[in-house]
Amino acid sequence: MIAKGQDNRQSIVNAANELFYRRGYNQTSFAEIADASGIPKGNFYYYFKSKDELLEAVIAERVQQVKAMLVEWDAQFPTPRERLQRFLSMLLASEEELTRHGCPMGTLNMELGKIQQTLQSRAMEMFEVFINWLTCQLDALGHGEETSALAMHLMARVQGISLMTHAYSDPVFLRREVAQLRNWVDQL
Amino acid sequence: MIAKGQDNRQSIVNAANELFYRRGYNQTSFAEIADASGIPKGNFYYYFKSKDELLEAVIAERVQQVKAMLVEWDAQFPTPRERLQRFLSMLLASEEELTRHGCPMGTLNMELGKIQQTLQSRAMEMFEVFINWLTCQLDALGHGEETSALAMHLMARVQGISLMTHAYSDPVFLRREVAQLRNWVDQL
Repeated sequence: MIAKGQDNRQSIVNAANELFYRRGYNQTSFAEIADASGIPKGNFYYYFKSKDELLEAVIAERVQQVKAMLVEWDAQFPTPRERLQRFLSMLLASEEELTRHGCPMGTLNMELGKIQQTLQSRAMEMFEVFINWLTCQLDALGHGEETSALAMHLMARVQGISLMTHAYSDPVFLRREVAQLRNWVDQL
Repeated sequence: MIAKGQDNRQSIVNAANELFYRRGYNQTSFAEIADASGIPKGNFYYYFKSKDELLEAVIAERVQQVKAMLVEWDAQFPTPRERLQRFLSMLLASEEELTRHGCPMGTLNMELGKIQQTLQSRAMEMFEVFINWLTCQLDALGHGEETSALAMHLMARVQGISLMTHAYSDPVFLRREVAQLRNWVDQL
């Protein structure tokens, strides 16, 4: 029964994760998550007292996925420059999703940043994990005191590219801009 | 009576414009717009059949404001480089709003870009007006075939900076990044 409960909870989180990304948080209802997960809406309250609590579980899930991905990159690529290039490859690998729905992290933070600041401060954990990792790589490249500013700069570039790719539904723009950022990383 | 009707309509558009920016489009109700404008909610339907129609009026208002601002900059600054610098000064002048609510154009497009693509295609007009103007300035600087890509690049930089300034509520980041973009424009 415990395993079954965990499965149900995970099914709800997975469906919510996908729908919050594709539809936005506020535009997604429990009814839609119930449809997508196959778990009756009435059962949701056993696992989550509110939609906000479900969002927190989704954020925790995303943070865990990002951390696992970064550990894998660290293991796979020995040099900080290769790791930063792997980070940029992620944009190209997500071309279709970025073009259709934008960056999961950027769009969620923008949405919550309007009038749901408490939730947004939770969603910031995704940014923090990336920024800390980028800072480590830039530090290893010997950028000293600049590293934190450079990490923020790189993330801003990536967010701007994601936003315009989504707004214009333009994968050609995405590829051109990522190529420029690749050069920027090579010249660091 | 026509003048009064126009005043009421404009009051609704002004209140909606402000609230859509501060709260987001989907998180703003007619009741809130009625409160802010002082026009009873029941009267709204005389001017706007739906919230979507009101959004279109808000977008038209914003587009008109942007166009008027660009005409003013063109009159005030004789060289394309000065005009591009004026464009960047706008970010610093909007520091408080950007930090609290993000870019009005970027956040609206991100919100609508999830599942309201028809409305988002209307909201794109704001981007188009800026991009066309940036393209004109870059063309005047002699960038030839590159101009359109450069205009998109500059807008992506500005959007990325706005997004991170909002996400981190960090005006220091804003100032640092705008200073970098100022150098970039000087070196064009």
